[in-house]
Order: sequence, then structure tokens, then C-alpha cells
Amino acid sequence: MRIGFLGVGAMGDGMARNLSKAGHKVAAFNRTRERAEALASDGVRVADTVRDACEDAELVVSVLADDRAIEEIVFGGDAFLTTLAPGAVHACMATISVAMGRRLAEAHTAAGRGYVSAPVFGRPPAAAAAKLFIVAAGEDAALSRCQPAFEAMGQRTFTVGRDPVAANIVKIGGNFMLASAIETLGEAFALTRSYGIDPEQFLEVLTQTIFPGPVYQNYGGMVARDVYEPAGFKLALGLKDVGLALSAAQSETVPMPIASVVRDRYLTALARGYQDLDWAALGRVCAEDAGLVGKR
Amino acid sequence: MRIGFLGVGAMGDGMARNLSKAGHKVAAFNRTRERAEALASDGVRVADTVRDACEDAELVVSVLADDRAIEEIVFGGDAFLTTLAPGAVHACMATISVAMGRRLAEAHTAAGRGYVSAPVFGRPPAAAAAKLFIVAAGEDAALSRCQPAFEAMGQRTFTVGRDPVAANIVKIGGNFMLASAIETLGEAFALTRSYGIDPEQFLEVLTQTIFPGPVYQNYGGMVARDVYEPAGFKLALGLKDVGLALSAAQSETVPMPIASVVRDRYLTALARGYQDLDWAALGRVCAEDAGLVGKR
Amino acid sequence: MRIGFLGVGAMGDGMARNLSKAGHKVAAFNRTRERAEALASDGVRVADTVRDACEDAELVVSVLADDRAIEEIVFGGDAFLTTLAPGAVHACMATISVAMGRRLAEAHTAAGRGYVSAPVFGRPPAAAAAKLFIVAAGEDAALSRCQPAFEAMGQRTFTVGRDPVAANIVKIGGNFMLASAIETLGEAFALTRSYGIDPEQFLEVLTQTIFPGPVYQNYGGMVARDVYEPAGFKLALGLKDVGLALSAAQSETVPMPIASVVRDRYLTALARGYQDLDWAALGRVCAEDAGLVGKR
Amino acid sequence: MRIGFLGVGAMGDGMARNLSKAGHKVAAFNRTRERAEALASDGVRVADTVRDACEDAELVVSVLADDRAIEEIVFGGDAFLTTLAPGAVHACMATISVAMGRRLAEAHTAAGRGYVSAPVFGRPPAAAAAKLFIVAAGEDAALSRCQPAFEAMGQRTFTVGRDPVAANIVKIGGNFMLASAIETLGEAFALTRSYGIDPEQFLEVLTQTIFPGPVYQNYGGMVARDVYEPAGFKLALGLKDVGLALSAAQSETVPMPIASVVRDRYLTALARGYQDLDWAALGRVCAEDAGLVGKR
Repeated sequence: MRIGFLGVGAMGDGMARNLSKAGHKVAAFNRTRERAEALASDGVRVADTVRDACEDAELVVSVLADDRAIEEIVFGGDAFLTTLAPGAVHACMATISVAMGRRLAEAHTAAGRGYVSAPVFGRPPAAAAAKLFIVAAGEDAALSRCQPAFEAMGQRTFTVGRDPVAANIVKIGGNFMLASAIETLGEAFALTRSYGIDPEQFLEVLTQTIFPGPVYQNYGGMVARDVYEPAGFKLALGLKDVGLALSAAQSETVPMPIASVVRDRYLTALARGYQDLDWAALGRVCAEDAGLVGKR
Repeated sequence: MRIGFLGVGAMGDGMARNLSKAGHKVAAFNRTRERAEALASDGVRVADTVRDACEDAELVVSVLADDRAIEEIVFGGDAFLTTLAPGAVHACMATISVAMGRRLAEAHTAAGRGYVSAPVFGRPPAAAAAKLFIVAAGEDAALSRCQPAFEAMGQRTFTVGRDPVAANIVKIGGNFMLASAIETLGEAFALTRSYGIDPEQFLEVLTQTIFPGPVYQNYGGMVARDVYEPAGFKLALGLKDVGLALSAAQSETVPMPIASVVRDRYLTALARGYQDLDWAALGRVCAEDAGLVGKR
Repeated sequence: MRIGFLGVGAMGDGMARNLSKAGHKVAAFNRTRERAEALASDGVRVADTVRDACEDAELVVSVLADDRAIEEIVFGGDAFLTTLAPGAVHACMATISVAMGRRLAEAHTAAGRGYVSAPVFGRPPAAAAAKLFIVAAGEDAALSRCQPAFEAMGQRTFTVGRDPVAANIVKIGGNFMLASAIETLGEAFALTRSYGIDPEQFLEVLTQTIFPGPVYQNYGGMVARDVYEPAGFKLALGLKDVGLALSAAQSETVPMPIASVVRDRYLTALARGYQDLDWAALGRVCAEDAGLVGKR
Repeated sequence: MRIGFLGVGAMGDGMARNLSKAGHKVAAFNRTRERAEALASDGVRVADTVRDACEDAELVVSVLADDRAIEEIVFGGDAFLTTLAPGAVHACMATISVAMGRRLAEAHTAAGRGYVSAPVFGRPPAAAAAKLFIVAAGEDAALSRCQPAFEAMGQRTFTVGRDPVAANIVKIGGNFMLASAIETLGEAFALTRSYGIDPEQFLEVLTQTIFPGPVYQNYGGMVARDVYEPAGFKLALGLKDVGLALSAAQSETVPMPIASVVRDRYLTALARGYQDLDWAALGRVCAEDAGLVGKR
């Protein structure tokens, strides 16, 4: 399949390579051209422009940073929608707002182009290893077009409905749960540490009993060791994602007090200059606010 | 080993049976005598009084409901501590406050009796199946005495220190994390449900990707189905346990804003009459406060 | 002075009349024309269009509902900025976001027109009685132009700086404090009511001792009597204003946990259908969540 | 009237002097005897023991620090209740828990002694100036006995019921509102300061418009100047009082999310070592968490 790929950052890099390795003809565009050029070793062609990447693609996969990047590329001056071939499908795989998700869906429908929303769970190593979990929503025909690509990038695809927005909200809900788990870990470690419990021992009890799985293992480990670099997912993006949840919730009058707490913690973390640490650095804020810094 | 067993409620029932089945000579006392009599089928002797259960025991295991029950039995008029034989060990396996944990430890030491704090993770079915996770702390000699009993009741024992209070705080921290996970699930399901996402589908995505394991499976299932009966752990006890966390945290000046949110939610749930539902019924409060009741 | 007046809702009605009564030549435009026509009795001329109201005005006063209304009128197709005479000044007296306040200031400067931000404290009766408190910011010359108008509409003007945004943020901060005082009253009345304290008596103690003044008198009275109609300021607008505070705070990494709580309460209130009650109806949410409804 | 006075701390000092100056025969007991001796200049007799102060008193006024001090003096070994003459009345004027208030009321009734709960609003200078506001509850006869004493100490007495606990809960509710107002000020000043607003100017706008009165003037001034010494009311006591509110609320299933936030802030403040600053030092916590320290 001819695939145009927009945005080869930390996630997109592995995804585009895996598409190419699976035999697809991938043309990748990236604002910072060097990032795209690095993919040549895996057979990916570097596109000079969005148009160059997309105009004869059967499928366009985008992994753009945020609503603003999508605004520019899809709704900017370059007529992205009409650049797409009439039968092409666009799969937006980034974590974006419900509002932008809805706007994209409507614009593609109005332009007669296929559209699938397909955000993923997984961090860069999972993207590189084709182990992503993909949450997809869209019309059946559009989803079918994406299927071979999803298989090349992920370990499993969950289809959650025909309305593309469904996939956005599932992803937003999941990320909220991750951020909440991080803050919860931060508070629990601050509590137990204040009583002299060895963090590694507490972590072992948690992960060997009630909270198995890599999420608690990874984030719990960061909090236990107070080490938040290198950042797999930057703290400033955590605030963005909790904001997506709060904003989506407000539209439907859903109070989310835990999300509010997490948002306030992220702001505190930013005010302390932690924007480039991993988003698990809420654990440090919890420890500091308990007066535990230096007692570690 | 001769074991006195105090408190055969939902948890103690399975625990005492498993001790007996493992070959120990168990004498059980329970305020409501009928509950103890039911254990006769597994070879447990019914004790008429606390003294009867404990005076010639090598190990006393207590699973009493709360601080108040311990206050009465251990510090009440019956001279519990001197009833214990000088070389005996008392293993307190209930979830109690740090303050009571400390008081018990000090009183046993002062009286020259052995003491181990050993709360458990697991619900009644796990107790019946000898699949509990036991978190234990105490002096080595006292822990050794308990070891055969722990092996008969649980699947694994985690030793977290010599100061018995360490086990209390680890258990309290773990229960706080469970309550927080429940409220988080409640908010996430309210959010996704408000966008028309099928709760079972959302549950599948969560538990098959980032949140594996029985905790999210069980509580997530309750929230997804809005079914909170029968209660494995009553909501009123959830408030008690979050209170234990907040109280322990306050003594060491540890702010726990998530715990505060969860506490407020439990109060709201109690005001709505949900005290006898499972403590996962925070999910219903979340749905109600989002105006989702009746839309299910 | 020739004054163009845009937006004669509940607040603008009294303000425009007072300008006219003070001898100014007022031309008022309102989307719903009838509202403007009602002002004829006080000598206000009805303008057919924004242009008609503004093109020969020395001062334009706008009291538009929200950012969206401003977007349409100021940045919409009608070239508002160039409609203003070169020496004219625009005083924006509505409660708007910091972002919109900044955009307005910059756009006027770029177009070479004067701009003052001048939101007010006071409800419609205060507007009618020329008893508003005006918080103004802008360049000296522009402020001087506004002075006679401010004197006709308010009892006092506070000048808080040259950057117009300063007035927006002071107003947003004040409104946050009002919303917080309301939620605080709601919680305090729920607490005392749950102990059988007569709400009127509690109100008397508060307002005669530590919390004098009309804010606590008015909102406390609504909460004490559980009467939230007619709405002086609708609850849906309360959510909007707390949102302005949270949004402004986020830009500068200022955590506001009280604002977060109030936001969640407003969402709960909206989910219960209270959008048209006075924003003091948080008091009802507090009472309901404490199980006090029906015990009143 | 012969009056026994227990506890002449910062508040009791002025109160006891004013009773003496009004012509009553006052005998004062204080743990630290020097504090009582200082009152001799105003005609107060120093009592050597509680018994010495109370045994022939017609009225006993106590202003003890907290529940623990009351526990010791009233329920300790010295038979306080039978020390009181049969017709005597005890007026407890401290801020205590509802639980202790209830226990005191019941114990006095059981012992056949009169009891009035009468906490006050006002800080030490108001106590010295006989300007306290007194919130009283109790049986009519007991209240009548107190009346001349209340007149000598306060500017006004509010009677809120026959059940003494009513006065405790009104006081607790009022103190919660003060603590909430402080945190609200802290957040509002952090917000406006982050936009460069002069704190004194913001304070002026607030206190001259929507928030008149000494509470906002005093606490707002502390926050605006970031000066929290000398402490009129120590921060550690603020945590205690919010705890009284949360505890009283929990008994009646009243959620108080604002109180929860304030409690968390006080814990953070204590962890930073602010226990001896004025309880308005939450303002500093707010500024610090917004990264504003050093920008002042």
C-alpha cells in the first residue's frame, strides 16, 4: 500500500519504519527534515512537502504533536483535504482534543475523504517494536483500509465505534487514568516513605500483589527512585492530556475531581521547572510537599 | 502449633479453616458464637471466651473488625496480654490505624509478649483459597513463629521491617491506592459514557492494555455494569480505610489531595445510602453527578 | 460626549440609561433590537447597526456577553476597528478572558484606536442605580476620555495599570473569590444544618460578626433559604467565570485548587439542571450531597 | 459574681481582666503560673489549683487550649465536676470538637452542674478590648448566669440554642469559613501577582468593593505583604480547626471539598516549617506553588 506519513517524532519514527518493513511504500514528511531522512535506512522515502507525501497515497497516517500542528497542516493554506486522492483514507493517530477530533471527522466527510481516528497506547520503545495498542474508530470501509497498516504497527487493535470521536475519548480517558495512577503512586510513596518504608520494598509489594503490569512497574519505579530522566513522556504533555480530559468532560457536564487535582499538581510541577522531566515527576512534587526531600 | 483465633468474620472464616486444615490445633473465639461453630466441620474448636482461645496458644491470630474491637479485647478488662503465655506471639492481621498499631506493639513489648503486624491483601474468596498476600513486620523470632501459619493462609508473605507499624502503613497505603483506582475508574467511565462509549468495550481496552490484573477487572466490571452487590468490601469500610490513610499522613505532614477527594466521595455515597454496597459504588456517585443516571 | 453603546442586556440597560441621563448622546445597538428600543424613554437613540452606533462616537462602551460575541462584533466582517473614528476610544466593560483582553488591546493599538478595559463589580440593580465599581486599565489619555462616562455609571473607579489586561485579571480574580465564597457558604450551611442549626441564625452570626457586607448577606441568604430564583447572575455564567480564572492561571502556572473544586461543583450543578438558577445554587448542591434535602 | 477562670493564654488574659474590671471576683488558674500572676494588676486573684479557682465559684469560665487540656482538667483525676458547687455553671469558651462538646454537656448534666458552650469570634486585641463576639448555647438558667460575664467580655452575644453543641458547631463553621477565605485570598493574589498586579492595589479593590470588613483587610494585608509574623493565630491551630470541621462533618456525612483542600494546604505549610506563622501563611504556600517566590 502507498502510505503518506506525517510527523516522525519519537512515536512516528518507529511506526513509519515498521510500515516500510512490512512492505508498504512509505513517504514521510516532517517539519524538521532530518528526522525524516533518518528513516531512509528502512526504505522510507523523504517527502519534501505534505503534498508530496500524500497526493498519491492510499492511506495517510498522521502523528502530529497537537491540535495546533493539525490545524496548520490540515486546515492551513495547503488544501490538505483536496490533496488527498478521492478514495484515500486519513488515519489520525495522535492524542488530540475531542473538539479537533470532531472537526476532522466532519471536514473529511464534507470533502468526501475517508477518516479514521486511531490513537495508541504505548511509549516509543513499543512503537519501535510494533507493540502498540491501537484504539480505532471510523466507518467500516475506512477501517478496512487501515487494517494492514495497524497490523504492521501494533500488537492489537480495538475498534470502538463508527464515530471517530469515540477513539479520541477512549484514549483521553485512558491517559487520564495513567496520570491519576501516577499521582496516586506519588501520594502513597510519600506516605510510606514518611514512615521509613523502603520505597523499593513498597514497590515490590504493590506490583507483586494488587497492581501488576508495566504501568505500575515503570512509573512506580521512577517514583521509588526519584529518577525522572530520560523522559519517556514529558511532564508538559501530561498537563496537556489532563486538560483534554477536563475539557471533554466539561462539554458533557462531567465533574472529574481527581483530574482537577492532577491538573493542579502538574501546574505546581511546571512552576518548579519540571516541564522536561517524565510526567511521573508528580512523585517528586508529592515528596517535596510532604517535606521529604533530602530525607530520601 | 496451638493457635488461638480471634474474629471469624468473612475473612477470618477461611483463614481459620486453612490453619486447621494445615494441621494446626485451632481454637476460635467470635463474639457471635454461631460464626465460630460453623468452623467445627473443619476441625476448629469453638472457644467460649478470649481466654479459652488464647491461654495455652503458641500463636494468637486476630482478625478483628477495627480499632474499637481491638480496644475492647486487648485493652479491655480481661487482661488479654497476661492471658497470653509468656512465649506466645500475637499476629494482628486486620487493617488498623497506625496509632493502634503502635500502641499494640508497645503494649506487647512492655508485657514481654511477642507481636507481629500482618495485614493482608485479598478478599474473602482469596482467604478461603489460601491465596492471601500477607504483609508482615516484627522481630525475627516472632515472625518465625508465624511463618507456618502464614504459609497455611496465604500465597506469599512480604516482610517489610522489624517495626510492626511498617506493615500497617504498607497496608494502608495499598488500600488508599485501591480506593483511588476505584474513583479514577468512576470518573473515566462517566467521561466515556457521556460520549456514548460502551462501558464493556472501554473496560476491555483498559484491562487488555495498560491496566491488566484482577483489581481493574473486578472493580472496572462493577462500574461498567453499575452493579455493586453483593459487596465484597462494604463502602462504609472504604471510608474507614481512607480515613486511616489521611490520619496517618497528617501525623507526618503528608498532604494527600487524592485521598481527600476520595474521602469526600465516600461521604457523598454514604449520604445517598450506599453504605452496604461494595466500595466500588463510587462509580455510581460519579455517574450520578454527571447526570448519567437513567442514560445507562 | 457622543457615546456608542454595544450590548444592552441586564447590565448594559442601566448603564446606557445612566449615560444618557448624565447628558451624553447615547446610540445603542443590541442584537435583539427590542431591548435597545426600551431605552428610548431615557433619551437613548436606537442604532440599526454597530456602524450606526459607533462611527461618529467619541467613546464606544461595550458590554457584550462573552468572548464569542466580541469575536463576532470586533473581529467579524464589519471592520469594527476602522469604523471607529481615529481619535475614538473603546471601553470594553464585560468580563472576558485574559486572552481576548490581550487580543483586543493589541488590535486596537495596531489600528491606532484607543482602548480601555473596564469591567465592573455589581449586579443589575447596582447598574441601574449608577452604583457600580469600575476596574479600569489603559493609557492615561484613553482613561481620561472614559472618566465622565465612568462617573455616570459607577460609584467609584479603580485604575489598576496601563496594560488593559490588568483590569481583566483583577475582575477575574474578584469573581473567583465570589464563587469561592459561595461554595464555602454552601459547605458551612450544610455542616451547621446537619447539626440542626437554624440557617437564619447562622447567617445572622456570620454577617453580624466576621463576614459583614452585602455579598455574604445576599448569597448567604439565598443559601439559608434555599431560594435561587430569580437569578441575578446565572449559574452557567459562574462556570464560565471560574473557567476564565483557571485558564488565566494555567498560562502562568498558578495552581488554584479551590477554583478547581468550585468548577467541579458547577459542573455537578449543571448536570442537575440548575443552569438558570442563581450561581449561589452551589448551596443546593452542597445540601443535596450531604443528604439534607427534604430535611430543610 | 465569684468567677473561677481556667486558662489565661493570649485570649484568656484579656477576658479575665475584663471580668475583674467589671467588678467580678475572679480567681484564675493557669498551668504556667506566671501568666496568671500577671493579672494581679487588674485585681485577679491567682489560684494555686483548679480546685482553688473553682470550689466556691458561681461561674467557671474555661478557655483551655484544646480537647486534650479539657480532658486533663475536667475528666482527669481531680474530680472537677464535683469540685463545682451544685448550683454553679461552667462556661466553656474555647474552640473544641463537637465530640468533646457533647461529652462535656452530658457529663455536667449527669453531675447536676450547669453547662454552657460559648466560643468566641475575635483575636487577642478584641479580647483585651472586650469586643469579642460570643456564640452561646445552653439551658436558659445557665445562660442567664453567664450573661453579666459575657457582657463584660464581649460586644455581643448570639444565643443559638439549648443544646450546647450548637455553639461549638457554629464556631467550627465560622472558623472553617475564615480558613477558606484565607486560602481563597492566597490563590487570588497568586493569580493577580503572576500578571504583575500590585498586591496592595488588588487588596484595595477587594476591600473597597465586594469584600469589606476587617477579615479581608487583615488577612488580605498579610498575604499582600507576605508578612505572617507576629502570628495572631498560629498556623498549626488552623489545621486543628479545619480538622474539627472535617471531623464534625464526617459524623453527619457532609462532604466539604473546600475544607479538604484547605487541610491539604495546611499540611503542606507545616511540612515547610510554617507552624508558628499566622494561619494566613497559606498565602505564602500559594505563591510558592505558583513559582512566585523571589518575584515579589
